[in-house]
Amino acid sequence: MELECLYHSPQGKWAYSYNKNTFHLRVRSKRNNVDRVFALTGDKYDWEHHHQELEMLKVATDTYFDYWEAEVTPERKRFSYGFRFESGEETVWMVESGFYTKEQPTPPGGYYEMPYIHEVDLLHVPEWAKSAVFYQIMPDRFANGDPANDPEGTLEWGAAPANDSFFGGDLQGIIDHLDYLLELGVTALYLTPIFQAPSNHKYDTVDYGTIDSSFGDLELLKQLVSLAHSKGIKVVLDAVFNHTSAEFPPFKDVIEHGADSKYANWFHIYDYPVKAEGDNPNYDTFGFFAGMPKLNTANPETKEYLLDITRFWLSEVQIDGWRLDVANEVDHAFWREFRQAVKEINPEAYIIGEVWSDSLSWLQGDQFDSVMNYPFSDRLLEFFQGEEMDPETFASHIYGLLMRYPRQANEVLFNLLASHDTPRVLTRLGGDTRRLKLTVTFLLTFTGTPCIFYGDEIGLTGEDDPDCRKCMIWEEDGQDRELFSFYQRMIALRKEHEVLRTGHFRFLQSEADSRGLVYERFNDNSRFTVWMNNSSEPLTLQQSLSGGNWQDAFSGEPVEMDGDGFSITLEPLGFRILQSLPEAADDGTKPEN
Amino acid sequence: MELECLYHSPQGKWAYSYNKNTFHLRVRSKRNNVDRVFALTGDKYDWEHHHQELEMLKVATDTYFDYWEAEVTPERKRFSYGFRFESGEETVWMVESGFYTKEQPTPPGGYYEMPYIHEVDLLHVPEWAKSAVFYQIMPDRFANGDPANDPEGTLEWGAAPANDSFFGGDLQGIIDHLDYLLELGVTALYLTPIFQAPSNHKYDTVDYGTIDSSFGDLELLKQLVSLAHSKGIKVVLDAVFNHTSAEFPPFKDVIEHGADSKYANWFHIYDYPVKAEGDNPNYDTFGFFAGMPKLNTANPETKEYLLDITRFWLSEVQIDGWRLDVANEVDHAFWREFRQAVKEINPEAYIIGEVWSDSLSWLQGDQFDSVMNYPFSDRLLEFFQGEEMDPETFASHIYGLLMRYPRQANEVLFNLLASHDTPRVLTRLGGDTRRLKLTVTFLLTFTGTPCIFYGDEIGLTGEDDPDCRKCMIWEEDGQDRELFSFYQRMIALRKEHEVLRTGHFRFLQSEADSRGLVYERFNDNSRFTVWMNNSSEPLTLQQSLSGGNWQDAFSGEPVEMDGDGFSITLEPLGFRILQSLPEAADDGTKPEN
Repeated sequence: MELECLYHSPQGKWAYSYNKNTFHLRVRSKRNNVDRVFALTGDKYDWEHHHQELEMLKVATDTYFDYWEAEVTPERKRFSYGFRFESGEETVWMVESGFYTKEQPTPPGGYYEMPYIHEVDLLHVPEWAKSAVFYQIMPDRFANGDPANDPEGTLEWGAAPANDSFFGGDLQGIIDHLDYLLELGVTALYLTPIFQAPSNHKYDTVDYGTIDSSFGDLELLKQLVSLAHSKGIKVVLDAVFNHTSAEFPPFKDVIEHGADSKYANWFHIYDYPVKAEGDNPNYDTFGFFAGMPKLNTANPETKEYLLDITRFWLSEVQIDGWRLDVANEVDHAFWREFRQAVKEINPEAYIIGEVWSDSLSWLQGDQFDSVMNYPFSDRLLEFFQGEEMDPETFASHIYGLLMRYPRQANEVLFNLLASHDTPRVLTRLGGDTRRLKLTVTFLLTFTGTPCIFYGDEIGLTGEDDPDCRKCMIWEEDGQDRELFSFYQRMIALRKEHEVLRTGHFRFLQSEADSRGLVYERFNDNSRFTVWMNNSSEPLTLQQSLSGGNWQDAFSGEPVEMDGDGFSITLEPLGFRILQSLPEAADDGTKPEN
Repeated sequence: MELECLYHSPQGKWAYSYNKNTFHLRVRSKRNNVDRVFALTGDKYDWEHHHQELEMLKVATDTYFDYWEAEVTPERKRFSYGFRFESGEETVWMVESGFYTKEQPTPPGGYYEMPYIHEVDLLHVPEWAKSAVFYQIMPDRFANGDPANDPEGTLEWGAAPANDSFFGGDLQGIIDHLDYLLELGVTALYLTPIFQAPSNHKYDTVDYGTIDSSFGDLELLKQLVSLAHSKGIKVVLDAVFNHTSAEFPPFKDVIEHGADSKYANWFHIYDYPVKAEGDNPNYDTFGFFAGMPKLNTANPETKEYLLDITRFWLSEVQIDGWRLDVANEVDHAFWREFRQAVKEINPEAYIIGEVWSDSLSWLQGDQFDSVMNYPFSDRLLEFFQGEEMDPETFASHIYGLLMRYPRQANEVLFNLLASHDTPRVLTRLGGDTRRLKLTVTFLLTFTGTPCIFYGDEIGLTGEDDPDCRKCMIWEEDGQDRELFSFYQRMIALRKEHEVLRTGHFRFLQSEADSRGLVYERFNDNSRFTVWMNNSSEPLTLQQSLSGGNWQDAFSGEPVEMDGDGFSITLEPLGFRILQSLPEAADDGTKPEN
């Protein structure tokens, strides 16, 4: 056994509370190097009378490792633990003090410890977010519901956007199209910033307490949120707390009064006078942009100001959560207080950080519920955009991503295909809607909270910013209605079946030398398999499957077994979703699926 | 190269801020599998103009791994990074997205990120603790300074202790012996609990706001702390916040009023009426002890009560820190607020958690400064108690422990050889004071904050509790005065030389087939080597050493080189400490050492 490849750490994603009674343990071993793994758990204060051995499940495999998981439900909210690995004739014990070839004396001493499961420490994510389908809107580009508030120089709707273009979109436009969103089937909106700011994107806030006048006002936002809520749609706003506009009054005060400004500690100023021009400003900024001074979120007054803002929009407008811009560059201490402030007002508010890289530090229970899952979209698009990545590599990446975070974080991870910061998904897929449908099918049958970028559902294209921020097309003949229907069907399928949202995920077929992919979602009551042909040729996939009768998830038509499994022929870039029909229960009702 | 053995994670001990300008990166590779490692760092917003490559140092080696470390001082408090491993002809790049055999496109994208170094998030430890030598006192057993407050049934000083014995020791006794402690050379006291409690050890608090009357009162504690401070001695008290006595008035109220008690949420009660007897109580306890009900530290009133207590002793008596009993069973959220409360009053207060297992979760900057380092004492005693553990294994363990935590945590880790919860160190070492001297030498020449358990310095022996909690011996002919002098000399040496406290640590000789051990401490100005013979036969150790003139650290006598190094003959279980004398500087002064 290759001991150097075994890894466990008694914290983070390797050992965490899933809920107040359940604890998850994970270990990894070199791929195909270990046959079976057992978690040896017990109460260190009386091991003899309180211990159990659990066989761990192999839940994921990437290029280098197998990952094993066990669910522990200790009697008294605490346990010590070790692992036993079996490989052929070889048996190895791994405890905190090291590796051994024989069983170790029982605790106290030497074993890993989960001293006590505290509900207050666990990552509790909003239940609704597990079932939500999000839709991201840039208000200036979605719909112009009130031409009276258009900013000076507003361009004609649909013109090619430049970095500084305004198109007059606003909150009234969103209100006007709530029924469109209902028809599509989405259940939550993420709006990019709407507070007063000079730019069209409004990531350069001047007044966090006021809706930008070209978008509307407080009353209109209340109306939007209340209407959305009445239709079962949640609303999440964008908080830009890392930096402000250089026009933010406290920063202007610092420029004017220098070190004497009462706002001097609101920023990270190196020396005075403040030089707010050029690309080497003498204060910390977002990137190297002199126009976006970084806030000092450790300064008590700044912190109180931002937390007041946070509370105001939650309690006054009853928004359902916050998306946090450049969240990784703000201090953890601030986010801890932020989470407390948010959850005190709305325990089920959803907090999504913008973090592009490994985000485990923020997903431990004390900061965010979720992050924008760009690594997921990158991997999906690399796979579905052509034939460069094989299914085995793709499966490795997806499993690797699933093993990055605790399970409850995965269940509400903000899975997107594109945003205002990337090229449009259809463009990244070479304009091929068949590839888009495969990608969207994966998104909507995967663990996590999916998000659709406005317009992707009707075939909007676009390269990087500003091209990806085109105006929404509202004339039906400019829309790909067939694509829209596809999105509708897929969203409806996801909403109808719990198992597609929170069921276990497993690849059944992901071979390096095929272009086919088969995976399943399952729980105790229900099972779906998804079959994909990621090639431009027809492809027949064979897969043995246990269990009851299977039907096509969309048509409802039965699918006949071929021997002990199925043989499914898929069109070029085609897919099918099969649903296993459970046996009828004794009372004639079907189990929930 | 064995890629599966490479490990890095962009958080915790693998990537952390050491101070507000400096960041540490660590990676590990399979032992002897990699020749050189480089950290590739740069600013993701302008990599081209802001990047650098740093060769990483191999700072530790354990049984399975080499550990590599780099110190990064980015221009703008942020950087992205990857690693390059070289082994013979083979080169591998490791970034967040995986392993590659060629250099990867520069960020943004794919690399690990340190988004921004926030001073508020880093683990800032008290400077004084890096230089302190602690002395742990159980007040009932140290000295009886005031027989008038002896509890009923007090036994004769020096009688064999039982679990329920009282000996009349008190705060006056400590005051009376402050000069003894000064003579020994210790600079800080850790007192086990002194608040009102029925037991002799007082880990079952009844009133957190009152000094136990058999120990003294508030005024006497103030006098003790103020006298200690005037002699340069700090005082740390013991906080037992995990559980209370069953006599704690709020718990009695719950027993009396059941669910109607206003203290019902102060504990973890399963159902009513509360059954406070037997070994299966219907509420959470410390261990299975019905007499020690566990506090619900997530309940706001309980929390406020405990934080008020915390603040009171810090501000009213000006104590210098808290040792936290059973700290790992209390929630992290509570400790975060605790740290804030403590550091607001005294930013240099020292917080030591009682955690016996891996403590990384508490040493990230938001909770403790330090933990009681029992794994260290276990390894030391296993090595020095006989010949079962060879020096190579010992070195592996010590390096492994050093790689458990960030460097600043190591610098104030509470290194002890014994406590009220273990047998006495001399007893664990078979009563051989030569072995004790080797062990103490290691303790006092190692990184971390050493602590001496009262009486160890005069040869007190004792098996597990209650035997290890014997009364201190004050008659000189009952003390091992030669041992006392040895402790004095070793403490003085440590206090005299900064390098023995915060210098780098490295083993120079630790072979499986020898009983000799040579290690060094060094910084830019100074260098010490420690030579040990952990066998009952004389032993000659040869070690090549570069650099200037060497002298015996105690006698000051020069030690002559033998070729390009030294040949040192040590007595059975003997040791020597050599100090390198730097060349005189141009102005005739010697560099600080």
